[in-house]
Amino acid sequence: MPSESQKSVVVLGATGAVGREVLLLLAGRGVPSERVRALASERSVGMILPYGNGVVIAEATRAEAFANVGLAIFAASAELSREWAPVAMCAGAVVVDNSSAFRMSPDVALVVPEINPEEATLGGHSPRIIANPNCSTIILLVALQALRARFGVRAIDVATYQAVSGAGLEAIEELRAQARAEGQSSGLSRKVFREPCAFNVFSHDSAVNLDDGLNGEERKVIDESRKIWNDPSLRVTPTCVRVPVVRAHTMAVTVQLERAAAEADVRDALHGASCVTVVDDRANNAFPTPLKATSRDDVLVGRIRPDPGAARDSAGRTDRYCLLVSSDQLRKGAATNAVQIGELIGLL
Amino acid sequence: MPSESQKSVVVLGATGAVGREVLLLLAGRGVPSERVRALASERSVGMILPYGNGVVIAEATRAEAFANVGLAIFAASAELSREWAPVAMCAGAVVVDNSSAFRMSPDVALVVPEINPEEATLGGHSPRIIANPNCSTIILLVALQALRARFGVRAIDVATYQAVSGAGLEAIEELRAQARAEGQSSGLSRKVFREPCAFNVFSHDSAVNLDDGLNGEERKVIDESRKIWNDPSLRVTPTCVRVPVVRAHTMAVTVQLERAAAEADVRDALHGASCVTVVDDRANNAFPTPLKATSRDDVLVGRIRPDPGAARDSAGRTDRYCLLVSSDQLRKGAATNAVQIGELIGLL
Repeated sequence: MPSESQKSVVVLGATGAVGREVLLLLAGRGVPSERVRALASERSVGMILPYGNGVVIAEATRAEAFANVGLAIFAASAELSREWAPVAMCAGAVVVDNSSAFRMSPDVALVVPEINPEEATLGGHSPRIIANPNCSTIILLVALQALRARFGVRAIDVATYQAVSGAGLEAIEELRAQARAEGQSSGLSRKVFREPCAFNVFSHDSAVNLDDGLNGEERKVIDESRKIWNDPSLRVTPTCVRVPVVRAHTMAVTVQLERAAAEADVRDALHGASCVTVVDDRANNAFPTPLKATSRDDVLVGRIRPDPGAARDSAGRTDRYCLLVSSDQLRKGAATNAVQIGELIGLL
Repeated sequence: MPSESQKSVVVLGATGAVGREVLLLLAGRGVPSERVRALASERSVGMILPYGNGVVIAEATRAEAFANVGLAIFAASAELSREWAPVAMCAGAVVVDNSSAFRMSPDVALVVPEINPEEATLGGHSPRIIANPNCSTIILLVALQALRARFGVRAIDVATYQAVSGAGLEAIEELRAQARAEGQSSGLSRKVFREPCAFNVFSHDSAVNLDDGLNGEERKVIDESRKIWNDPSLRVTPTCVRVPVVRAHTMAVTVQLERAAAEADVRDALHGASCVTVVDDRANNAFPTPLKATSRDDVLVGRIRPDPGAARDSAGRTDRYCLLVSSDQLRKGAATNAVQIGELIGLL
């Protein structure tokens, strides 16, 4: 049997927005291109994809492509994940799945390495699916994890400012085309989004549940946060909105802690948080933005302040804090988290 | 003495983003151009401004321009308001001031006609200042006024998606120039905003208080809401953010009511609310957007839903609801509100 360092790493959906980031990260970690198999849809077969100083060639998604696989990172649709995960596991792979297909299955681990790494490592190298959470969920929970560890978290109110690239590479082109055509409405192409995306913001494009009024993105943030933190009583109040940003999601967060905390202690916790960089310069009005977060693997946190509407105790402590968060959802919200899981389980 | 219908209407800052909207609204209400005096800074004197089917010419801001004035609508800086309000009052004018100069003065009324019209009408035609609230405050409170009247409002959590035109016409040009130059960072002009505004979002550009961490916009929303609703105990948790939108502000709002309400009753209240139009089509994912709100005088409200994180009583009622709101901040957030005040007091 080949050793893990010889087994191949399959990237399904390698030509997409997340898949390209996965390749970039694998190359950056020194995985030789010979070990990487970039799988794509029929129409992308033969596409030449940058890989470190070289390239990899997109090949068709077929059962044979999974021969000798150790790790399979899926960055395609939930439908494709359902189709190909059994094939990959039969071939012996651990599948790290970026789609929503398996996230809420009780027997599938939903993993953020900074939060619940033990959920990933428990199964060793045995073939199974490990689910990568929704991008907004990852970014939100990484930003809050250190506060949860130190003070507990009871409730989260979050409004998102989500980049269009969460809807794929076509959405980036749609935004750019609309921005160029500004003022000429006839030039506005609308294939990905129902609403114009340039010079506009709109409620997230996922379907809205007719009963509770939540869109799919909001439902994911609620359900996945409760699963990852193993806290069914966590209260989450999300409003998910798209903004004309190419990549990196931003979030206005109000968090209610279990125990009142001093602002200095909240700052101390965030400065020590894993995968978090504090960007919080009040004097220069410099805080997290999606442009600052683009192509980074961490989560930027700033505008750290006590909720002005909350009560204080005699020592000035309060249990409610506000934050502004930005992070590249193609990186920590997707590709980086998946690659970290591969490292955690020793398959990279 | 001339009757009110003969007295002139002075618009200070007539060439600015809000001033132009004031002219458009005055013309739409049939105020003859002969009654209108469009005042501007020295560099804009002589500028020809559209007025209905005709034009008005910008003239210098001098004491003589206030001769025979009834209503003076100020749409310039707080500094200019402080300088010229006494002159206008000496000339007999009621000043409706769109700046922040006098809003929090205890003896100055801060008026939204749908909320506290009596504060405007109390003084008849006697010379005084009536302050127009901050754009975000007006939009937020108009959206919530009917809920307050019926159920009471205890607390508001609001994240804003604010258009660049709140920073003036130059900001619109900055956004457009940056959008055109996309991909060529050398072409990015940055005069108005410290952060790039195209393809980005950033914490509001008003100065941040070093002690409490609130920016100027957030402080206005808190203080002005409490004054207009005459409720010093109102809890407001704002996060104010700019987005690359030309005009119209959007807000993700979570409101905590005094009394639990059924969703049907919340909807009923909003459908009957003054100056509010409900845009809430879950099946088609059609909700308020800034493009839909642009050049309208009302406030669009949608995504009406109970907070999924809130408790329900046995009848399914809850005291927390979420909304998405969009409204043209140059219109109802500024010019429309000011012109309505002029009508209220019988000077238009």
